Amino acid sequence: MLLTIIYIIAITAEAMTGALSAGRRSMDWFGVILIASVTALGGGSVRDVLLGHYPLTWVKHPEYLVLTTFAALFTIIIAKWMKHLRNIFLLLDALGLIGFTIIGCQIAIQMGHGFVVAAVAGVLTGVSGGILRDILCNDVPLVFRRELYASISFAAVVFYWICFQYAHLNLEATVIFTLIFGFTLRVVAIYFGLEMPKFIYQEDDESSASSTDEH
Amino acid sequence: MLLTIIYIIAITAEAMTGALSAGRRSMDWFGVILIASVTALGGGSVRDVLLGHYPLTWVKHPEYLVLTTFAALFTIIIAKWMKHLRNIFLLLDALGLIGFTIIGCQIAIQMGHGFVVAAVAGVLTGVSGGILRDILCNDVPLVFRRELYASISFAAVVFYWICFQYAHLNLEATVIFTLIFGFTLRVVAIYFGLEMPKFIYQEDDESSASSTDEH
Amino acid sequence: MLLTIIYIIAITAEAMTGALSAGRRSMDWFGVILIASVTALGGGSVRDVLLGHYPLTWVKHPEYLVLTTFAALFTIIIAKWMKHLRNIFLLLDALGLIGFTIIGCQIAIQMGHGFVVAAVAGVLTGVSGGILRDILCNDVPLVFRRELYASISFAAVVFYWICFQYAHLNLEATVIFTLIFGFTLRVVAIYFGLEMPKFIYQEDDESSASSTDEH
Repeated sequence: MLLTIIYIIAITAEAMTGALSAGRRSMDWFGVILIASVTALGGGSVRDVLLGHYPLTWVKHPEYLVLTTFAALFTIIIAKWMKHLRNIFLLLDALGLIGFTIIGCQIAIQMGHGFVVAAVAGVLTGVSGGILRDILCNDVPLVFRRELYASISFAAVVFYWICFQYAHLNLEATVIFTLIFGFTLRVVAIYFGLEMPKFIYQEDDESSASSTDEH
Repeated sequence: MLLTIIYIIAITAEAMTGALSAGRRSMDWFGVILIASVTALGGGSVRDVLLGHYPLTWVKHPEYLVLTTFAALFTIIIAKWMKHLRNIFLLLDALGLIGFTIIGCQIAIQMGHGFVVAAVAGVLTGVSGGILRDILCNDVPLVFRRELYASISFAAVVFYWICFQYAHLNLEATVIFTLIFGFTLRVVAIYFGLEMPKFIYQEDDESSASSTDEH
Repeated sequence: MLLTIIYIIAITAEAMTGALSAGRRSMDWFGVILIASVTALGGGSVRDVLLGHYPLTWVKHPEYLVLTTFAALFTIIIAKWMKHLRNIFLLLDALGLIGFTIIGCQIAIQMGHGFVVAAVAGVLTGVSGGILRDILCNDVPLVFRRELYASISFAAVVFYWICFQYAHLNLEATVIFTLIFGFTLRVVAIYFGLEMPKFIYQEDDESSASSTDEH
């Protein structure tokens, strides 16, 4: 099945981005494996825990955890050549983002949820692995500060929903069209450096006790 | 029902504090919506996941997610006037804290749990949305460093428990009295700048490998 | 039962390391109690939520939460003498690490899972309380940057698995041998300052958009 192949490519690519983040923080090999696995499998785990969709993917298929472990170790070996692979990575990551989104969306639909929950499930599956990676590495999650990323995941959900629920395409066609649509959108966003408008809020003094922070 | 109205006010107010925090970190609109929704609905989600209380509120009522999304976008529009609304916000946030606490406490009691678990459920519902907001924005959670907040949530649980289990008041009276009690306590704490005693620990050298940190 | 005694020692010791971390961040007493409880009980909670193993330990036995609360308050009182107790703490923490690992591993086996999931459950129970503590205190989790820790938890799982599934020892013998094995390994690692090899990744420029961070 196409989605399984894309899923395997996606978790491998995401595991490698996680391993590189861990390497930037000089973590030991165990930390690298853990952060790689959380980056790759954390998005789906967050979705499944929130929807009560047990057992989790990696509990049912522990071989995916073995795969992310090997991807992490492989990244340590090839790290010095990584910067030459930058573009391949960006494409694999784009494929992974859309693949994760479609899978999350499908699971929510199978569980009988409507559009809003399907959209949340799709976007969460696509982006929350990267958010967990950034939290574990003590960064502000990047997903909200660079080119279109979460919003492309959302656009893919909308496209999927229209194809499947309104145009009544079959599942295969919906998946393939959504992949092409989302992947193209992401490549265009990277190429032209497209960004969502940002909300920049600077207060002269504290605006409320419950939202004060310092620095 | 009174609690539903308070819940809607509370998630709106909390979503707006989340949106402002995201704005301080210059996040894009998607990040603002996500952080607003996590701040508003994350406390209840943490409680429900820990207690195994499925489906989660926003899965059952996706309209709440739509509400927090609009609250986030509305905050972006009115941000420049926010500092004039500081006091209204503090009061809505106080109402929300007590409302969330009561709801969390009630759910634990309905599930048959005793005082300790009800207290944890109440306090978690009240404070963990804000903790998640601060983690996602890479801050040390503020809830533990400013005026009485989590402790007022705890006091409200104790008050609720006494009214309901010992004084045998009916549910409506318990809810209303607890709201008045907790809200008053919070306003007094803000007005006089009341704080919990702090635990300040400075070690000359590392005290144990498992609790070492740097800086 | 031996494991219950070790569990109680472990959560007490972990609660105290959590309280000290909170004290380094000058948190108030409520924050100290929360971080102590999360450090002590968070590892098991993460495991139970991921495996869908309800009710959680502290929901079933709220007395453990009362214990971690008192351990936190006790730490505030004795904080100034803590540095003289450093070595006792390291030993209790080592005992706790192996005890948590064994409990996590046993629960996964009882639920019918194989080696990979049992290993993840064991290591998660052992280390994720400390990871949550560091996230809440806004640190990069230390578990991946100091002497062997997570890897000893993993070694204990492997040892346990060999004793129980291949050598067919009974449960008591497996637990005792694993405790002795893991505890000894940890003490040796601390004494000689053994560390896992680290993965240090420095890029001259950004290597990929999905793994870029700044600093």
